[in-house]
Amino acid sequence: MSNRAESVLVGLVGEGVMPSLTPPMHEREADVQGLRLLYRPIDLLELELPAAAVGDLLTAARRMGFNGVNITHPCKQLVLGHLDEISDDAARLGAVNTVLIQDGRFIGHNTDFSGFGAALANGLPGAKLNHVVQLGAGGAGSAVAYALLKAGVGTLDLVDMDANRAAERAAELGGLFPSATVTPRTPAQLSELMPLADGLVHCTPIGMAAHPGLPLDIELLEARHWVADIVYRPIETRLVREARAKGCKVLDGGRMAVGQAADAFKLFTGRDADRDRMRAHFLELIALEDAAAALAGGTFAKAAH
Amino acid sequence: MSNRAESVLVGLVGEGVMPSLTPPMHEREADVQGLRLLYRPIDLLELELPAAAVGDLLTAARRMGFNGVNITHPCKQLVLGHLDEISDDAARLGAVNTVLIQDGRFIGHNTDFSGFGAALANGLPGAKLNHVVQLGAGGAGSAVAYALLKAGVGTLDLVDMDANRAAERAAELGGLFPSATVTPRTPAQLSELMPLADGLVHCTPIGMAAHPGLPLDIELLEARHWVADIVYRPIETRLVREARAKGCKVLDGGRMAVGQAADAFKLFTGRDADRDRMRAHFLELIALEDAAAALAGGTFAKAAH
Repeated sequence: MSNRAESVLVGLVGEGVMPSLTPPMHEREADVQGLRLLYRPIDLLELELPAAAVGDLLTAARRMGFNGVNITHPCKQLVLGHLDEISDDAARLGAVNTVLIQDGRFIGHNTDFSGFGAALANGLPGAKLNHVVQLGAGGAGSAVAYALLKAGVGTLDLVDMDANRAAERAAELGGLFPSATVTPRTPAQLSELMPLADGLVHCTPIGMAAHPGLPLDIELLEARHWVADIVYRPIETRLVREARAKGCKVLDGGRMAVGQAADAFKLFTGRDADRDRMRAHFLELIALEDAAAALAGGTFAKAAH
Repeated sequence: MSNRAESVLVGLVGEGVMPSLTPPMHEREADVQGLRLLYRPIDLLELELPAAAVGDLLTAARRMGFNGVNITHPCKQLVLGHLDEISDDAARLGAVNTVLIQDGRFIGHNTDFSGFGAALANGLPGAKLNHVVQLGAGGAGSAVAYALLKAGVGTLDLVDMDANRAAERAAELGGLFPSATVTPRTPAQLSELMPLADGLVHCTPIGMAAHPGLPLDIELLEARHWVADIVYRPIETRLVREARAKGCKVLDGGRMAVGQAADAFKLFTGRDADRDRMRAHFLELIALEDAAAALAGGTFAKAAH
């Protein structure tokens, strides 16, 4: 491990990234592969920097010897103006979550879409992709929709509370994939759409601890539907649990989280990550968080009595 | 190794630092101690930045999650204006080679002097320190002289080709150590001084590959003198070799290089470095360099024929 050429320094730039599980996922995988890798969270909120500082942070990363950085909310579009080169997919998607720093140049990639695509292929092999209903057309939703269309989805219904956002995204994606039919939809249309769909993908915050609940009427799900959630805290969302209880094949949100990390690891290090090992570690980390939260809750409950 | 709290990110800011052996020394020692540590050279020349950029680089280091940086030529004084706190010794010496970044604050230390002090104590145990002749009163020489005076040297003769520099340094050091006698001297006075001295310390570039030769008339050395060199490329300078042949006890330049690194390692990580292990690794690295240089020379010679 003393060969300096084998050491990799990477980071994650965004707001509220301190609790991200991506750093330990990368570091553990590198450990197993005998690679010295250090992954630093670089939190705009802690640094009291605006999102527009992403360009300065890229310069700092280059100067300080970083091999690359992941980029997350709210910088995935802002970073575009600071790149020397961009992958075709990231350019089409208009969002970058991974920047390689090579010979002083910034090269943008997107592993959100590729990570979801790999997760879908590995986690739901053979899933029918003719017609998919997607809930949520925000930033993560855009990457997921792009991955679905790249995977061959022929009919994609984009459902969003914000009709304008759904319409814009549908128009953009329809332009990129002219042979597919991408249609903006409202939640009220779900009862008509689900009987026609092969699967459901969920890309809104509902199901996270702070937003409990279900993103759609669970009665609309049938055992023949496959269901993919991208929420991973908790890993077992109410949607995942109830869909599984109905007999649906399910892809939990951890698959996309691991998928984007594995693809970024490959870009950063040139080495394949073992996705199963990375997922096992991810699940361990989530379980640790749950245990810590339970302990904190218990302490709080005790203190309250 | 997956605990993020146990990972340490450090660097070295200065001109021409790419070939420094300090990064691999730190990384190897950390490896043995099971600590994830990454040490990045941050070269002003490669980055085409002026020495005055050291403040910006400290800010970059803080933002990018560095635990600290070593500072070398030409920034050891310039960095003083950017610190939030400084150790007493570094403030007295007026030079900082190690900056810790803690809670967003920059704390300056100097391990050049402490490293030389430890090297002297460990490498020449029991050496008489009443009267020492020092050749060279530049930046490294200042730190060495400070260490000598801290170690109890009573009479220090500071010899420099530049009489003004010798006079200034002698006045500064005399002010800091009023019970010692620090006198500026010229090379011509060496023949009078050496018969009175216990030991000789060498702090000029003479003996480096680019400056071959001896820094003084070797006839002035007697077997009773101890000799410390701070040149370490090559590790066996002509001074070291000829002094040893005369029966002198010798401290080679690697001792100070390892000493400053070991003390910086302690500051960066909170852990003691094993100095013998670090020195063994340092000697390995030097030997590798020599082998590579010999190979390059051989290739060149072959190509010339």
